[in-house]
Amino acid sequence: MDVEEFRKAGYAAIDQICDYYNTLPERNVKAEVEPGYLVKQLPMAWPNASQKKRFQKPRTDMWPTGLLSSWVVDPGDAHGPVGEADASLSLPSLLVFPPRLPFALSLTAPPRHVPVEIAADFQSKIIPGITHWQHGKFFGYFPGIVTFESILGDMYSSSVTNPGFNWTCSPACTELEQVVMDWMAQILGLDSDFLTSSGHGGGTIGNSASECALTATIAARERALRTIARQSNGYSDADSLTPIDVPTAIRQEHTKKLVMYGSTQTHSLGVKAGVILGMPFRSLPVHVEDGYALRGDTLKKAIEEDIAKGLTPFMVIGTVGTTSSGAVDYIAELGEVVKQYPTMFMHVDAAWAGIAFALPEQRERLRLAEVNKYADSFCTNAHKWGLVGFDCSLFFVRDRRDLTEALDVTPAFLRTKEGDAGTVIDYRNWQLSLGRRFRSIKLWFVLRSYGVEGLQKHLRSGVNLCGELAKHIEQTPNFEIVTPPSLGLLSFRLVNDGERASDEELNKLNADLNNRLAHHPEVMLTQTLLKTPESEIFCIRFAIGGRTTTLDDVKHVFSVVEAEGKAALSAWKA
Amino acid sequence: MDVEEFRKAGYAAIDQICDYYNTLPERNVKAEVEPGYLVKQLPMAWPNASQKKRFQKPRTDMWPTGLLSSWVVDPGDAHGPVGEADASLSLPSLLVFPPRLPFALSLTAPPRHVPVEIAADFQSKIIPGITHWQHGKFFGYFPGIVTFESILGDMYSSSVTNPGFNWTCSPACTELEQVVMDWMAQILGLDSDFLTSSGHGGGTIGNSASECALTATIAARERALRTIARQSNGYSDADSLTPIDVPTAIRQEHTKKLVMYGSTQTHSLGVKAGVILGMPFRSLPVHVEDGYALRGDTLKKAIEEDIAKGLTPFMVIGTVGTTSSGAVDYIAELGEVVKQYPTMFMHVDAAWAGIAFALPEQRERLRLAEVNKYADSFCTNAHKWGLVGFDCSLFFVRDRRDLTEALDVTPAFLRTKEGDAGTVIDYRNWQLSLGRRFRSIKLWFVLRSYGVEGLQKHLRSGVNLCGELAKHIEQTPNFEIVTPPSLGLLSFRLVNDGERASDEELNKLNADLNNRLAHHPEVMLTQTLLKTPESEIFCIRFAIGGRTTTLDDVKHVFSVVEAEGKAALSAWKA
Repeated sequence: MDVEEFRKAGYAAIDQICDYYNTLPERNVKAEVEPGYLVKQLPMAWPNASQKKRFQKPRTDMWPTGLLSSWVVDPGDAHGPVGEADASLSLPSLLVFPPRLPFALSLTAPPRHVPVEIAADFQSKIIPGITHWQHGKFFGYFPGIVTFESILGDMYSSSVTNPGFNWTCSPACTELEQVVMDWMAQILGLDSDFLTSSGHGGGTIGNSASECALTATIAARERALRTIARQSNGYSDADSLTPIDVPTAIRQEHTKKLVMYGSTQTHSLGVKAGVILGMPFRSLPVHVEDGYALRGDTLKKAIEEDIAKGLTPFMVIGTVGTTSSGAVDYIAELGEVVKQYPTMFMHVDAAWAGIAFALPEQRERLRLAEVNKYADSFCTNAHKWGLVGFDCSLFFVRDRRDLTEALDVTPAFLRTKEGDAGTVIDYRNWQLSLGRRFRSIKLWFVLRSYGVEGLQKHLRSGVNLCGELAKHIEQTPNFEIVTPPSLGLLSFRLVNDGERASDEELNKLNADLNNRLAHHPEVMLTQTLLKTPESEIFCIRFAIGGRTTTLDDVKHVFSVVEAEGKAALSAWKA
Repeated sequence: MDVEEFRKAGYAAIDQICDYYNTLPERNVKAEVEPGYLVKQLPMAWPNASQKKRFQKPRTDMWPTGLLSSWVVDPGDAHGPVGEADASLSLPSLLVFPPRLPFALSLTAPPRHVPVEIAADFQSKIIPGITHWQHGKFFGYFPGIVTFESILGDMYSSSVTNPGFNWTCSPACTELEQVVMDWMAQILGLDSDFLTSSGHGGGTIGNSASECALTATIAARERALRTIARQSNGYSDADSLTPIDVPTAIRQEHTKKLVMYGSTQTHSLGVKAGVILGMPFRSLPVHVEDGYALRGDTLKKAIEEDIAKGLTPFMVIGTVGTTSSGAVDYIAELGEVVKQYPTMFMHVDAAWAGIAFALPEQRERLRLAEVNKYADSFCTNAHKWGLVGFDCSLFFVRDRRDLTEALDVTPAFLRTKEGDAGTVIDYRNWQLSLGRRFRSIKLWFVLRSYGVEGLQKHLRSGVNLCGELAKHIEQTPNFEIVTPPSLGLLSFRLVNDGERASDEELNKLNADLNNRLAHHPEVMLTQTLLKTPESEIFCIRFAIGGRTTTLDDVKHVFSVVEAEGKAALSAWKA
């Protein structure tokens, strides 16, 4: 495709995206497809117009699942592996061809598909399998929205693609990220320690809150081991100890004793960081009377238990806005406990809710001052409620050395004069991967277009709609709010208003309701289980935050819930 | 921005991208900016036209580095933190405002910037700081190219953004990835075990080769621990043991004994995986006579040494196409060693070179048959030489349970009926993060547009140009090829043809040449250090693979190298 062909195809793609958004309100929010719907429609080998005629019906006897059970190529028509080089095929290149395939694939001279054909397939084959996260009636999981401004920013990013690992890879990529992350820190009201311009802390864009939490955990582990090494060897605090400098004996002896904490309400990113690093993550109990938030006493007790067992506490993940109910952990209480143990590190995960720090009226409830005082690192996703398309996780650390001392690996082929001089940031040393996308540009587009006020208006709209929904549910027979609105999120359940059933029975009833809703194309809601030592409540989450969501959208979806609820209640009573 | 505004801005963005590519040949490949060039140009607070007047010159006495040394806001003009909610500010929300900032920021009512202004800033501020990886004369690191087809695919991806962690998130995203990864496996000639349609192996798209190698290392660690647990507990091989099922005592006792291997030529992703997981990575020596490739004997010897010390070998990373010289490890030799130790796992990193498996004539040299016979996992980056924009790492495993048994964490809020039924793939259990971009679509666009032949033609062009360059260097006085062409890569150095200097002296000479080239705006080359027990050679890499690169581009850049080489030699002799 040359430049002029791209211009045409690009305009057409823009038009198609416009059509998509113009018709979105008329679509059902949920993809109405069954598993395998697309696999069945696409050829298993190269798309080749002339090949289609040769596809046969499935030979399921030969293949367990997936592609091959749908279409196989007629072996009678095959003539060798890849392309025109057949004549020159050496023995090894023939050998490598999948020996278990019951046929040889015809990959010769596939016709090039012109963009208009691919675009048509996008419409007819891909779009039906899209769950419309941009739909005004999407209330599942968390908002995961994109804006036109973000799409534009990403287009510019794609056009100058580069792996961005060093400043030299493309200075603009590193420096724009420094600037927009400092903007974000200020918009969110973060302490100046978290600004890159502070010279010691800083922000970087990661691809997900899980990745950021994992990165924080690694930083915490290494800091704890350095602390132990310092204590053992009499190093002063000022000495920088890179990972390699932690003596092997100390690493071997102490790593296995390290233990990290969160609550039963911590996002699975906590357990997953533990699983990835092979370290125990203790999910501490929360209580209904604390609004499912983790308290300092609970942490303190767990730490003391573990120390008595000879273990070493090294990390707690505090959450601002839990996934299940939007609970906000008692950050200051946790922080006061953390302070007592020199090996401890606090990461605050605010993947969904943190963006609401942009709203001054929410800062107290969301404990921003406590985060500012106690957190070593903090993460919120601009790609959830924050108007920027996936991926754009905002990750801030109070001391960038926590990252660089854990993650800096610089072989000869990655050295640069600027990196050696220490005058630039090489973000590869702040993250797990080497390469990275130019993600700051979409954030730049969004922030400049929306402004603080635009972002605040959008966030307040979600909060207000959730308040309206709560009022409505309170007035609706046979429904109750389980956890009250936290920003744009609430959870509710179906109950029998007369003779109240037990939680166990209600859980079954709501599992049935949830199953009914899972089959309804107009409803995209997700469920959760609120577990405490005292109770276990299955409920349904309603997460508001779409860019175009209106009160009518909310009401409409809840009217479906009401109708399905009636049916579920009738079935249950019968 | 509404749909019609987006249409206009989108067309304009397409036009700007077209202009960029039309003018690219006239630009210098390297960004001609100094550290801080962009930070100095952008306001540290919100971009706000009226605010600019209030910026003052730096107060460097108060701030160490970065943004704040460039611009600070006049405190006299400040009137509180964020937006119009000032009047309702509660004490805590005031408290959270960065206490160390010597001023209060004015974030009130920032004007919305229209796309045309942002786009203009992209041209005037961002583009000058872009190193042009898409330039025909880019020969640094490795090719990191994008095609118009990839840009189009990414636009469609952005338009339906979603976090894609479950099949239900958007069925199309999961299923298209299954299909195109099976296409890629076939195009590369991978064993059918690596196809998702095999039912047991499969491919998934990661964001970088580092991430994939890390994921493979975690899979390897868990498989080794399960193997040890089985041996200890008499489980049969058929039992599936998830991470949680490895007894804590076994995990604690054995994790610290695990050791992984690669060579001194393994990409830093090996060392980094070790650093991240807190496990030792042994960089084994290679030799010049083996072409810097790792041999089985070397691995065997290291393993035996470690076993004698009571350690447990669990992983080797074999490389097809090392970063420094394009060496191909002796995969079959390594594989035969791996087979002898039940806890061992082999990951093959072919980040750059693996895409060339699409060329039948390269398969023998690149040891495809050996990869097919011995590798547990394999990674190559479509986003390097493979015509797809960053990020698109193709990661294949022979047994998907190696991933899911290490990484599956499913809390209540992530359960779906399809996931519970096991009829779909939930890629979150194949990777570190939860969320993921819809990346298969850019690969789909590229594969359908280019076809196998288009991809092959592109790859062969790079190989041929490198051959031409090698011939030219051989005929050039005072230059020698250090490692011969491996696909599109060779390394060379400056020598004094008369009285030959020692390697040590030549290394200094070439470091000087490299420094001269680093300052030349028309040259983008990178250096490396080839280290063996016998020698240490500093040389310059020439990595060819641009989409539009011609012989003239190659010759032109090398003519600059020749001229700078002359200058370096003169200075050296003087």
